[in-house]
Amino acid sequence: MAKKRSVLVVGAGDATGGAIARRFAREGLAAVVTRRELPSLEPLLSQIRADGGEAHGFGSDARVEEEVVALFETIERDIAPLEAVIFNIGANVNFPIRETTSRVYRKVWEMAAFAGFLAGREAAKVMVPRRRGTIIFTGATASIRGASGFSAFSGAKFALRSLAQSMARELGPEGVHVAHTIIDGAIDTEWIAKNFPQRYALKEQGGILNPEHIADAYWMLHAQPRDAWTHELDLRPWMEKMA
Amino acid sequence: MAKKRSVLVVGAGDATGGAIARRFAREGLAAVVTRRELPSLEPLLSQIRADGGEAHGFGSDARVEEEVVALFETIERDIAPLEAVIFNIGANVNFPIRETTSRVYRKVWEMAAFAGFLAGREAAKVMVPRRRGTIIFTGATASIRGASGFSAFSGAKFALRSLAQSMARELGPEGVHVAHTIIDGAIDTEWIAKNFPQRYALKEQGGILNPEHIADAYWMLHAQPRDAWTHELDLRPWMEKMA
Amino acid sequence: MAKKRSVLVVGAGDATGGAIARRFAREGLAAVVTRRELPSLEPLLSQIRADGGEAHGFGSDARVEEEVVALFETIERDIAPLEAVIFNIGANVNFPIRETTSRVYRKVWEMAAFAGFLAGREAAKVMVPRRRGTIIFTGATASIRGASGFSAFSGAKFALRSLAQSMARELGPEGVHVAHTIIDGAIDTEWIAKNFPQRYALKEQGGILNPEHIADAYWMLHAQPRDAWTHELDLRPWMEKMA
Amino acid sequence: MAKKRSVLVVGAGDATGGAIARRFAREGLAAVVTRRELPSLEPLLSQIRADGGEAHGFGSDARVEEEVVALFETIERDIAPLEAVIFNIGANVNFPIRETTSRVYRKVWEMAAFAGFLAGREAAKVMVPRRRGTIIFTGATASIRGASGFSAFSGAKFALRSLAQSMARELGPEGVHVAHTIIDGAIDTEWIAKNFPQRYALKEQGGILNPEHIADAYWMLHAQPRDAWTHELDLRPWMEKMA
Repeated sequence: MAKKRSVLVVGAGDATGGAIARRFAREGLAAVVTRRELPSLEPLLSQIRADGGEAHGFGSDARVEEEVVALFETIERDIAPLEAVIFNIGANVNFPIRETTSRVYRKVWEMAAFAGFLAGREAAKVMVPRRRGTIIFTGATASIRGASGFSAFSGAKFALRSLAQSMARELGPEGVHVAHTIIDGAIDTEWIAKNFPQRYALKEQGGILNPEHIADAYWMLHAQPRDAWTHELDLRPWMEKMA
Repeated sequence: MAKKRSVLVVGAGDATGGAIARRFAREGLAAVVTRRELPSLEPLLSQIRADGGEAHGFGSDARVEEEVVALFETIERDIAPLEAVIFNIGANVNFPIRETTSRVYRKVWEMAAFAGFLAGREAAKVMVPRRRGTIIFTGATASIRGASGFSAFSGAKFALRSLAQSMARELGPEGVHVAHTIIDGAIDTEWIAKNFPQRYALKEQGGILNPEHIADAYWMLHAQPRDAWTHELDLRPWMEKMA
Repeated sequence: MAKKRSVLVVGAGDATGGAIARRFAREGLAAVVTRRELPSLEPLLSQIRADGGEAHGFGSDARVEEEVVALFETIERDIAPLEAVIFNIGANVNFPIRETTSRVYRKVWEMAAFAGFLAGREAAKVMVPRRRGTIIFTGATASIRGASGFSAFSGAKFALRSLAQSMARELGPEGVHVAHTIIDGAIDTEWIAKNFPQRYALKEQGGILNPEHIADAYWMLHAQPRDAWTHELDLRPWMEKMA
Repeated sequence: MAKKRSVLVVGAGDATGGAIARRFAREGLAAVVTRRELPSLEPLLSQIRADGGEAHGFGSDARVEEEVVALFETIERDIAPLEAVIFNIGANVNFPIRETTSRVYRKVWEMAAFAGFLAGREAAKVMVPRRRGTIIFTGATASIRGASGFSAFSGAKFALRSLAQSMARELGPEGVHVAHTIIDGAIDTEWIAKNFPQRYALKEQGGILNPEHIADAYWMLHAQPRDAWTHELDLRPWMEKMA
């Protein structure tokens, strides 16, 4: 019998993170999901268990080093060796540069870049000695293009992309697969449904990204044989204007 | 019963093109493969048929407009509607700029870019009215970086990449999926085995790309639901230095 | 007294090429300008001479290898050693992919990429042995982005950019400076005045590129000391949307 | 008589920042230079004054918002309107990912990205209402490529580049010129002389960047007429391998 393995999804609060956790759990990995408030993870945990999967939730602030270090220790010790770590925290805000407060600029970086560094580094620590594992960072259009009004969000997303590149160049030859995605379009979430009803109306014709399909792409990345690894993968609806 | 559909692989002479054709045939598409000399396609055709697939070979010069136009007409009329077109012709040469002849520069462009334009345009003609279909162009490291000695090869590959971008931006909203791959590393071929034995020795540990795995990636691109399309996909062995 | 040196501007028919030739002539180089029809160069030649400069015009088809080779021989033998070569031929066309003829696709490439290869290669031949000289290729937004409808133009411009990169990597260490510009906006020409009157009306407030200012940038590139060379330079009006 | 104007160089402690300050002072701007410890600025201030320029030094921590805000107020009130702001703080460190402490990762970002945001935002506040001014951010190879071991440095540099893009897209149409440089090579500094003597030995043949030439390029960017602005400028020695 194959040894049990686990996946950690940091930032499993949204539709995408949840779909990824469910997808990997369906493949037999113990799914560990985190967000700041544990109770809000309950529906996801129940869903995974109802599907026959193993799920563990942790309330954990991804920006706090001690919490992240402790989380990895707990998973490795009490659950199963980490086979995949998905960093999925976004922090999309839009302000003209003169109205961007230092608090916002710093906080967005802490959530979307610094927390990614912490998760990525801890993942490297457990995966490199085993010479196996997958680390995926979720990016966006803002990862490759600094648009007007996005100095904070894009700054964090560019930093996260450079982290993925730097880690891929260092860890690839160590047998650890580091990938970065570019989600270029609206995702099917309640937030989009409420705030962008016209965009949401395109759902029927495939105009917004289905989180399940994003999750399929993440699993595909994880399942790639090591002679043919993808480092960067873009995903967008067919009708989306390419950045 | 689902209507029969076909895939065309232009430049099926090498290991990659052959693997792609076999992969798509295995999924039930009638595989149409071309290269300049028909007889050399026989082993591939036999293999696909032995696997229970449908295969058609054509000796066709991908740089000659009339032959390409006729090929598409024949396929659509006599075989099945084209569901996917894969352009897979490379032409890797390396000369210092002062020793690059105009004949080489032009020929490489005709094979790797002009022929891609012809195939892409004809594919668009049949796919757009049906609002479905996938067009994939095979790229390489040289598609994104003009290295010393590669003015001819890289010139053609950059041009092919711009074709893919231009077509994706025009045809995506028409329902046609246009993708571009970046194969960044040596592929498991007889040519590599013979000319780069040290590199080939890395095969056992996944140091060179397995054509079957490239083919899996192409099928994945074709199978993507249209709310989550990838435009550009890189593939490289884990130990390969990222470009 | 410094030895006389020359500059060649291939494609000096338009406002930009003319301004570059005048600028370099003002700095003391013998200006050699070409376009297909010699008579149309007369106003430019007169202008340079009236400014006290030396000017030579040649009717020469930049796509015909023998003509290009002969041109370089003539300049080096009869005028002065080439210190700078500027390739400035564009060929902006816009067609939906399905309406792009192979004749257009090929012709645009021949004008904007193949001709650039010929000029660049011949420039390398005379400059490398002297370990000095500057080669500048004129690019555009289409050099870095394949927009809808620009498969032909962008294909040629991408190819030209890869040529510049490939040559820079090979020839930089040989002491030859290879640069590529990205002109991102409308240039002040009669053609723009006639066809885009609204855009032209922005001229007074700096909304369209002044060819004299482009020429200044080209001279700056040429004059850079070799410890601080620029390979790629973008230029756009302040009010232009960045690509 | 033209109204007095000023330039602020944030991070004028190194050879490059000093050369930029001297260059702009030579053009008649009052040079304001900062670094954390005021006394270390004395030689630079004396040099500018000896050249007949106006110079002001401030000990100021570029990462502390109140200090930056106060600095801009002081300059605008007591010295002269800011015509140019140059952000020139680097923080090059290299650690394997598993040995990169959160303290280093955060500190490098604060110095090279967050401080750039503060300076850029304050510059925007004074320049936009006047619809004039230049803001230049100093980048490096690490700004466009996340190399192995550079997760911290590259993360900050990517973020700074996205800031430059975001601000350029927002402020260009407001009449403010935002540019980003990519310094791709060693600069002639005491630090390089001491730590990389072999590299330093290439100085005589132009193998390392002369800060004076970098300063010329910054002045050129500032002096560009607004119909022909450059957003991104790379600079490297002729013998440097292009990134």
